[in-house]
Amino acid sequence: MSKVNLRPAATMFPLPVMLITCVDASGKPNIITLAWVGMVNSVPPMVSISIRPGRYSHGLVKASQEFVVNIPSEEMIGKVDLCGVVSGREVDKFSETGLTPVPAQEVSSPLIEECPVNLECKVKRIIPLGSHDLFLGEIVVIHSDDTVLKEKGLIDIAKALPVAYCAGARQYWSMGKMLGWYGFTKGRL
Amino acid sequence: MSKVNLRPAATMFPLPVMLITCVDASGKPNIITLAWVGMVNSVPPMVSISIRPGRYSHGLVKASQEFVVNIPSEEMIGKVDLCGVVSGREVDKFSETGLTPVPAQEVSSPLIEECPVNLECKVKRIIPLGSHDLFLGEIVVIHSDDTVLKEKGLIDIAKALPVAYCAGARQYWSMGKMLGWYGFTKGRL
Repeated sequence: MSKVNLRPAATMFPLPVMLITCVDASGKPNIITLAWVGMVNSVPPMVSISIRPGRYSHGLVKASQEFVVNIPSEEMIGKVDLCGVVSGREVDKFSETGLTPVPAQEVSSPLIEECPVNLECKVKRIIPLGSHDLFLGEIVVIHSDDTVLKEKGLIDIAKALPVAYCAGARQYWSMGKMLGWYGFTKGRL
Repeated sequence: MSKVNLRPAATMFPLPVMLITCVDASGKPNIITLAWVGMVNSVPPMVSISIRPGRYSHGLVKASQEFVVNIPSEEMIGKVDLCGVVSGREVDKFSETGLTPVPAQEVSSPLIEECPVNLECKVKRIIPLGSHDLFLGEIVVIHSDDTVLKEKGLIDIAKALPVAYCAGARQYWSMGKMLGWYGFTKGRL
């Protein structure tokens, strides 16, 4: 084995794959699939999503200053891919996918009912980086299906069945096996 | 099934689990495991990492303005967990884990040899968010083991075997099966 150089690019994996919902000025909802998504802060809980300025959802999130992060399950992978490759300017993605918009509590963007976890977010800051603008959003409400909840408000990943995007491979992957709990080593090998 | 509310928190999954290397002023290297990591921009390629100001690595990255993102494999999960729960102030994590530091090209922070992919990054911006500071880093060099490379510079995920952290469950998970390539639906179900 030896190390070789690759051209600097988005070679990071695994990444989240999230269905982001947003609304236009009339309240009509849209969906965009994003993998340039991450947790960025714990107190207050904040996420980041990066969107190209040319994408239809970019203008919607910028104007409304809000969005919902919907965590899809692996059986939805076709719908997840579709929402990443067609534009809301031409296609009503809720009609096209059959996904169900349900009202959120604190934002106008809908939750996607079929996604087991939904995070309502309000935009706190927009940072232009080049090809993408970085939206920093505070999580104001979290919804979870009762069917994927375990004791203590923890999520049962074996039921939620989330999807990862492996940039560098351009592939979606399911979760495999649970390798351990955070802190399982107690700091010793 | 019905939706229930959870307290706003870092309930997002899957997330990357990365070993971030950095150096102190004398060149002594440290490792910190982070899951608050993501891709944020494509041109130029940029990543974000969030670190609490109290963590030892925070001061190192802030002072040196650089870091390396090392992508671990599932067999390293114990070392990954250890580097997230002990402090570089008290423990030499390279000695403790037996991981091997090798020189990078453009930064002083070392690569971790055992990690199949390594991203050398230079800090472009630091944004305080509350509990964490968000470091935005440009990827300047990427290294890959030749053993995990496929044609066209793509990564073979079944060989790299990366790990996801499922916040909301507090668990590390391996990858399962490949669900599809980006764009596999060609925009149609």
